[in-house]
Amino acid sequence: MKATAIANANIALVKYWGKRDETLILPQNNSISVTLNGLNTITTVEFDKKYDRDVFILGKEKFQGSEEFKRVVKHLDLIREMARIKDRAKVASKNNFPTAAGLASSASGFAALSLAGTRAAGMNLGLKELSMLARRGSGSATRSCQGGFVEWLRGEKLDGSDSYAIQIAPPEHWPEFRMITTIVSAIAKKVPSRAGMTETVKTSPMYNAWLNAVKEDLENVKRGILKKDFTLVGKTAESNCLKMHAIMMTTKPALIYWMPATLEIIHSVLAWREEGLEGYFTIDAGPQVKVICLEKDVPELEQRLQNIQEVKKTIVCKPGEGSALINNHLF
Amino acid sequence: MKATAIANANIALVKYWGKRDETLILPQNNSISVTLNGLNTITTVEFDKKYDRDVFILGKEKFQGSEEFKRVVKHLDLIREMARIKDRAKVASKNNFPTAAGLASSASGFAALSLAGTRAAGMNLGLKELSMLARRGSGSATRSCQGGFVEWLRGEKLDGSDSYAIQIAPPEHWPEFRMITTIVSAIAKKVPSRAGMTETVKTSPMYNAWLNAVKEDLENVKRGILKKDFTLVGKTAESNCLKMHAIMMTTKPALIYWMPATLEIIHSVLAWREEGLEGYFTIDAGPQVKVICLEKDVPELEQRLQNIQEVKKTIVCKPGEGSALINNHLF
Repeated sequence: MKATAIANANIALVKYWGKRDETLILPQNNSISVTLNGLNTITTVEFDKKYDRDVFILGKEKFQGSEEFKRVVKHLDLIREMARIKDRAKVASKNNFPTAAGLASSASGFAALSLAGTRAAGMNLGLKELSMLARRGSGSATRSCQGGFVEWLRGEKLDGSDSYAIQIAPPEHWPEFRMITTIVSAIAKKVPSRAGMTETVKTSPMYNAWLNAVKEDLENVKRGILKKDFTLVGKTAESNCLKMHAIMMTTKPALIYWMPATLEIIHSVLAWREEGLEGYFTIDAGPQVKVICLEKDVPELEQRLQNIQEVKKTIVCKPGEGSALINNHLF
Repeated sequence: MKATAIANANIALVKYWGKRDETLILPQNNSISVTLNGLNTITTVEFDKKYDRDVFILGKEKFQGSEEFKRVVKHLDLIREMARIKDRAKVASKNNFPTAAGLASSASGFAALSLAGTRAAGMNLGLKELSMLARRGSGSATRSCQGGFVEWLRGEKLDGSDSYAIQIAPPEHWPEFRMITTIVSAIAKKVPSRAGMTETVKTSPMYNAWLNAVKEDLENVKRGILKKDFTLVGKTAESNCLKMHAIMMTTKPALIYWMPATLEIIHSVLAWREEGLEGYFTIDAGPQVKVICLEKDVPELEQRLQNIQEVKKTIVCKPGEGSALINNHLF
């Protein structure tokens, strides 16, 4: 029983930061993201009696006993429980982008693991169930199960059965939409987002104001996507990102994910926009800046970004597909 | 009728950002500051019939028609109204630190102008009246009229007659208290604080949360000053500063006063503190970072700060006196 799946990373336009249930990973608010073509994780899962314990390999590294390993084992346990199997598994995973630098590798990772794992365990879940399973591994993984423009519903139920991802629009709805990811540093962040957001909910005096403001941002981004109103989507996403960093930095102790290079890019994007070059920044729990733009402005923006000394690399993505099966070998 | 006065700059430990009355310059919240020995403005005011219009000289530059000039003339008008005189004035002013870079030159400037101006106009105001007059020129100037640790009362009255500065403790109460100002760039900020704070009150969804949180910060800083509890004062001031920047960056359009070098210093101060070197940062409406510390840690902190490439200069200040008269020539 072995299966291989691929899932793309996603970047939120309206951010997720804070849970209403820590165990079930239920968010405090809906979030909206774009699934990014080309930033992916490919994961193979094999359940077999020959393994006397779970094995997790990411890239060339074999994880054992670490936090990452425990999260994967916990997820395999969920799958085993659903499939009513007992076999241990070997999980081999590969990201084509740097891990733990605000690029949400856990999103593509747990989306791919959920799909490969359930298929390897002989199950065939629908998209809704799959995204609910992925959610248990990492909140943002919920969204990577779907393609294009995606909304993760907060849900109201205590058991989480109404908290999953739905597609607002498929990738082909807005083929001109682009996200330029700039890589300014491959240093892993100090505070993982999971621990960070728990502290924010508990200690930021601005958390409630954030939740209230998110409602309007969700409506604007959704309307903007459906109407392909780029300015509305970009402006709202940028403002939403700043609000998230505001609640991060008012957490105790403060969560300051920005690095000097982050601000260098922020100020550049703002200055270029004043010149008429329309790009908007968004930043997650790390130093990396993503620039939202339209296809026509990619050459100019990418060149200018690459001219910034601290920018090591840029990656341009268009809206991509949701998680997909590559191979399924059933014995 | 000519008088010369000196006033020190002040740096807020609990910040002022937003007015309840734009004309009378009445703040939304109380603020607390330290008057800084050695960062001063010296201003000479002469009222004389020989001048057919007001003249304002700052350093070597003669201002005419600019916003700065208009603010000075408006302030002279207030003084003339109080003193019931009509003469035009010559104002010659000198700062010993760079202007408009978040170092609150308007605070020491209007405090010195208020004292020199009223004396030159033949008045002798008490500290309370003087700080209310200074307030009309620039909110934070209210605090520079007093020495040491100062609280600017928000007041409740519509006419502003209960919004002035009081001394929490004189400079000699805590002689070990230090503020290290780092100068990372002499570039004037793009959005003057006056315009910026008006927009924040109008557009930041987090402004009310800020006002609520300030109450606790005020109590903690006041208690910390009176007990000379450095950790309490430092921690609270740093957290208050981050909350102010949170409401700034959630203003529309966003007010992002930090520059790359600002973040470089922020992260350095945080890292040094983890090592046991106790400094706390505070930042106003500009890129400059001030590090709050005790006298014993000045040599180590100052050297480390100077080792940061972007830091052009450091200035160490202890608590200083309020505005003072230097010369009074009455004819």
